Amino acid sequence: MEFDLATGTALLERTPATLRAMLDGLPPALMDATEGPETWSPYIIVGHLIHGERTDWIPRARIILAQGDNRRFTPFDRFAQLRESQGKSLRQLLEEFAQLRADSLATLNGWHLSDTQLELEGEHPEFGRVSLRQLLATWATHDLTHIAQIARVMAKQYRDAVGPWRAYLPLLDR
Amino acid sequence: MEFDLATGTALLERTPATLRAMLDGLPPALMDATEGPETWSPYIIVGHLIHGERTDWIPRARIILAQGDNRRFTPFDRFAQLRESQGKSLRQLLEEFAQLRADSLATLNGWHLSDTQLELEGEHPEFGRVSLRQLLATWATHDLTHIAQIARVMAKQYRDAVGPWRAYLPLLDR
Repeated sequence: MEFDLATGTALLERTPATLRAMLDGLPPALMDATEGPETWSPYIIVGHLIHGERTDWIPRARIILAQGDNRRFTPFDRFAQLRESQGKSLRQLLEEFAQLRADSLATLNGWHLSDTQLELEGEHPEFGRVSLRQLLATWATHDLTHIAQIARVMAKQYRDAVGPWRAYLPLLDR
Repeated sequence: MEFDLATGTALLERTPATLRAMLDGLPPALMDATEGPETWSPYIIVGHLIHGERTDWIPRARIILAQGDNRRFTPFDRFAQLRESQGKSLRQLLEEFAQLRADSLATLNGWHLSDTQLELEGEHPEFGRVSLRQLLATWATHDLTHIAQIARVMAKQYRDAVGPWRAYLPLLDR
C-alpha cells in the first residue's frame, strides 16, 4: 500500500486512545511485565513513544522541510525512556503521550504538505537518504508495531495459564 | 503469571474499546488488508471475535459449570465469520462485538466464581480435560493475540512505504 497523508494521519491520531483503552487501569504487575531480560514492558514502550514524539518524528520532518546544508538527523536514543519515565505513573505517561501526539498532529496538519514536499529528503545517520514520505510512513508503522508488541507482551504472561491451548496460540512462543 | 479473575476480567472488558479506538473510521482498504492469501484482515478478525462470543467462551464455561455427564465442547468454527459478517459494516461489527462482550461479562460476573469452580473441568475435543481457569485465561489471551494480529496486519501494509526503515521493523517481515 502506498503511503497517503490522510490514512497515515488517521492511524497516528488513533494511537493515544488505543493505548488508553488497552492499558489504563490494568494492574502494575502486567504493565511492568516483559518478554524476558532486555525486553520492554508496556510501561517502557509508552515512555519510548513519548521520547519519539519529542525528539524523532516532527524534529526530523523539520530538518527535511528546511532543506538546509546539514540534513543529517540526530540519532534516536532508544533508551531515553528508562531515565525520563522515572517516577511517573502509567496514567501520567498516557496523558503526556496524548498531549504530545496532539501537538505533533497539529504541526503536521498545519504544514499542508504537498506531494512534492513528501518527496524531499533528509539524511538518516545509518541509512543515508530517506524521504519525508518514508519518515511519515515509518512513524505510523512504528506505532502499530509497538501496539502489537504491547498486546504480545501481555498475552505471554498467560503462556502457562492457558494450559493446552498454548498449542493454538503460536504468538505466545514467538 | 497466574490467572486471576480480576485481571482477566479487566483485560476482557478493554477489548471492545481498544478495537474501536484502533479501527473505527479507518479506510476500507486497510480494514480488508491481509498478510497474504488465507490470512485474515482486521474486518475478518472482528467477525471471528463475535463468533467466539456467541459460541465459544461463555457456552463452554456453562458446560464446565453444569458438570453434566457430557462435558465435551462443541468444536469451534474458525470460518463462521466469513458467512456471518456478510453485508455488515465494520462499525456494525464493532458495535455487535461490544454488546456481546458486555453480555458475556455480565454473565461471568454474575457467577461470582470461586477458586474451586475455576478448577472444574470440561472436555476439549482435541486436548481432553481443561479447567475453567484455563478457558478464561485463554479467552483473555485470545483477545490480545488478535489485537496484536490486527496491528501487525496494518503495519505490514506499509512494508514498502517505510523504505530503508524496514530493517528496524522486523515485525513487517514476520
